[in-house]
Amino acid sequence: MADAIGITLLGCGIVGGGVVKILSEQRELLQRRSGLSFDLRHIVVRDRSKHSGRNVSTDAAAAIDDPRTQIVVELMGGIAAAGELIERALRLGKPVVTANKSLLAARGRELFSLARKHNTVIAFEASCGGGIPIIDAITRGLVANRIDALLGIVNGTCNVILTRMTKNGWTYQQALAEAQRSGFAEADPTLDVSGRDAAQKLALLASLAFNVTVAEGDIYVEGVDKIQAADIGFARDLGYVIKLLAIAERNAGDRLTLRVHPTLVHRDDVLAEVGDSFNAISIFGHALGHALFYGRGAGQMPTASAVVSDLVDVALGSRAIAFRQQRIYPDSTPAADVLPFEQLESRYYLRLSARDVPGVLADVTAALGRNGISLSAVLQRESNDSQMVPVVITTHLAREGAVRKALAEIDALPTIAPPTVCLRIIDQPKEFAGA
Amino acid sequence: MADAIGITLLGCGIVGGGVVKILSEQRELLQRRSGLSFDLRHIVVRDRSKHSGRNVSTDAAAAIDDPRTQIVVELMGGIAAAGELIERALRLGKPVVTANKSLLAARGRELFSLARKHNTVIAFEASCGGGIPIIDAITRGLVANRIDALLGIVNGTCNVILTRMTKNGWTYQQALAEAQRSGFAEADPTLDVSGRDAAQKLALLASLAFNVTVAEGDIYVEGVDKIQAADIGFARDLGYVIKLLAIAERNAGDRLTLRVHPTLVHRDDVLAEVGDSFNAISIFGHALGHALFYGRGAGQMPTASAVVSDLVDVALGSRAIAFRQQRIYPDSTPAADVLPFEQLESRYYLRLSARDVPGVLADVTAALGRNGISLSAVLQRESNDSQMVPVVITTHLAREGAVRKALAEIDALPTIAPPTVCLRIIDQPKEFAGA
Repeated sequence: MADAIGITLLGCGIVGGGVVKILSEQRELLQRRSGLSFDLRHIVVRDRSKHSGRNVSTDAAAAIDDPRTQIVVELMGGIAAAGELIERALRLGKPVVTANKSLLAARGRELFSLARKHNTVIAFEASCGGGIPIIDAITRGLVANRIDALLGIVNGTCNVILTRMTKNGWTYQQALAEAQRSGFAEADPTLDVSGRDAAQKLALLASLAFNVTVAEGDIYVEGVDKIQAADIGFARDLGYVIKLLAIAERNAGDRLTLRVHPTLVHRDDVLAEVGDSFNAISIFGHALGHALFYGRGAGQMPTASAVVSDLVDVALGSRAIAFRQQRIYPDSTPAADVLPFEQLESRYYLRLSARDVPGVLADVTAALGRNGISLSAVLQRESNDSQMVPVVITTHLAREGAVRKALAEIDALPTIAPPTVCLRIIDQPKEFAGA
Repeated sequence: MADAIGITLLGCGIVGGGVVKILSEQRELLQRRSGLSFDLRHIVVRDRSKHSGRNVSTDAAAAIDDPRTQIVVELMGGIAAAGELIERALRLGKPVVTANKSLLAARGRELFSLARKHNTVIAFEASCGGGIPIIDAITRGLVANRIDALLGIVNGTCNVILTRMTKNGWTYQQALAEAQRSGFAEADPTLDVSGRDAAQKLALLASLAFNVTVAEGDIYVEGVDKIQAADIGFARDLGYVIKLLAIAERNAGDRLTLRVHPTLVHRDDVLAEVGDSFNAISIFGHALGHALFYGRGAGQMPTASAVVSDLVDVALGSRAIAFRQQRIYPDSTPAADVLPFEQLESRYYLRLSARDVPGVLADVTAALGRNGISLSAVLQRESNDSQMVPVVITTHLAREGAVRKALAEIDALPTIAPPTVCLRIIDQPKEFAGA
């Protein structure tokens, strides 16, 4: 048996605690399943008084520099301090395992390049999809595929909120408050509910899937914070469920559309069944066809499971081999060629507040028609409120730009109370599209 | 750039053709995504007249022995000849990539041992779940998990048949005939519809998941060939869909239950949504919780996708590293400790043909009660046929042995037309059961 692999753990919050738990409680299992044993030499924390143990310290630099530290695990989060310590480890040629999607989305290119320069590696399975081995699937299992689309539910907080709104008929505020009470949303939920967290994950996943570098700014982002209970209900009546999807698709000429927004998913779609804090990512490969990966997208032990799988892969040396060979990491790929969002082709869901329905529907359909948008369905209910009547329209495939133009015209009508709600409907990409 | 990796392909049928297609048409993609290029030196076929190309031959031994052959891909199928050629390659220290689940289920222990002796490796991602990278997920992504359950749909043919029966109200014979016409079932469908193919895959998957050696004979097997349209209908009325599931679960004392049989799955379960030739495998890990892997379980290009991903992993050397280190392959693990099937705890679906309902229901419930089985639901419809009335009963958790005893008593009643149909109902295993 080889010597135990020396580990330094930077940060010991929720996920770090899970890693410590696996490394200490599952020594025998890990030994059998990986052939390795790990020695947690240093746990670096900010406040020593909250932690016990001889291996706990506050001196990150000394822990990283310790010659017996062979792998550095960064679970502190944030950009500046974490980035500096990761750089320190890489400069010493020590591999880094991290779950820090914000850092990689912001500075991935530079850090991967540094790792390559020092003949080492960054592993980041835990940064996307929690415990789901999705990075591994894209970079290894699907290595023989030209990936044509990648889309899914990658933010557990938003999925908890939308699931509660759908199942319990709650408002966004009710669902958010409940998610905060039950630990699924932070006190400041902005990063999650704005869609930014999902966009950072999509930047990483799409970079690896499409062999290009995707920056967070390449991605069109809408969050869940403006979703109204009425739209969840109308969507259901039309046969859809509203999910926050992260979507990357290859279009003609290898141009990508990249977007995170609330999306109407048909109730027969597997993604419609993905509830609560679960994540699920669909991938369409030219050879594989449609595949889907489902599991806990967050939480202590699922995320720790991904961190430890990275630790094993790095310790075995196989991650470094792949990193050296594969030209899919952001330091080795060109910037993504992104289709301007106005050119997106999608189906749309529109909900208008109309004052006088018979007259207004003619005006609305005229505005849509002028912009080349054809209707798929119209849903209008009898209303007790004689002032404002909701009218729901779904469209066939249309251009985002045309829809925006039509919406501006519609919202200017005297019979409409703006703003008209506009959501996108997704049809599953076709399998074997260009195979 | 390193030299191209020399490949010998044994067998060039459907899947072999897909591998040739990927290696020839996706050279540039493979080069970028793996850093490797492959040289298909030999394609060995039985009948040379059906194939063209300078690299086609009928001499497998010579092709394997060719010093420029660095990896052997076995896609001929069958046991005897394939086994012999794989042994030949392993004895030369050449890694083998295979999709041959029958061979590995029958002779895995011996072949893995031979590979180890000659310091080489067998990769077999394509043997289970078609293009889904499920072997990789179990052996790498979930390496830090004590796996508590693995269950899923692993045979595309059976799933096509059951999907058509469910959606179209067809009989088994109608659905089988249609599956044969559309290429989803073989002319002799026995291996698939009997459940044996699923059992061979379960033997492989469970071996890796539970760190034990599972033999095909350890697995209780029922196929889909006795499923009647009436049961699909009653199941639907009760809120269930019938699927052929392969199930491996860890019980108290680490004893495993291993089984393949038609199973009533609740319609809210993700597995219920898996239709047509898709496969899906749920895994419950002590840290990860519930994860599910979904995709095309068969077909030319999905399976070829898995073969080529193995080729890349083997050529990079990472598969050999893992194989050397991990003590999870059948040559390094003890035989599974299998719970006798009579001790299985499950819920059950029973459909009786009763002559005289008021009287008979008392007799039937008495027989169940005598064996300690309590009822969950009873479904009985008005019938035009005054002779025979179907009565459907679902039970709470009961022992298989007790149910069999009760069924023998029920089928002996003068008011019952035997045999009573008996199917098992599954509730999803609990996440984090013993965590």
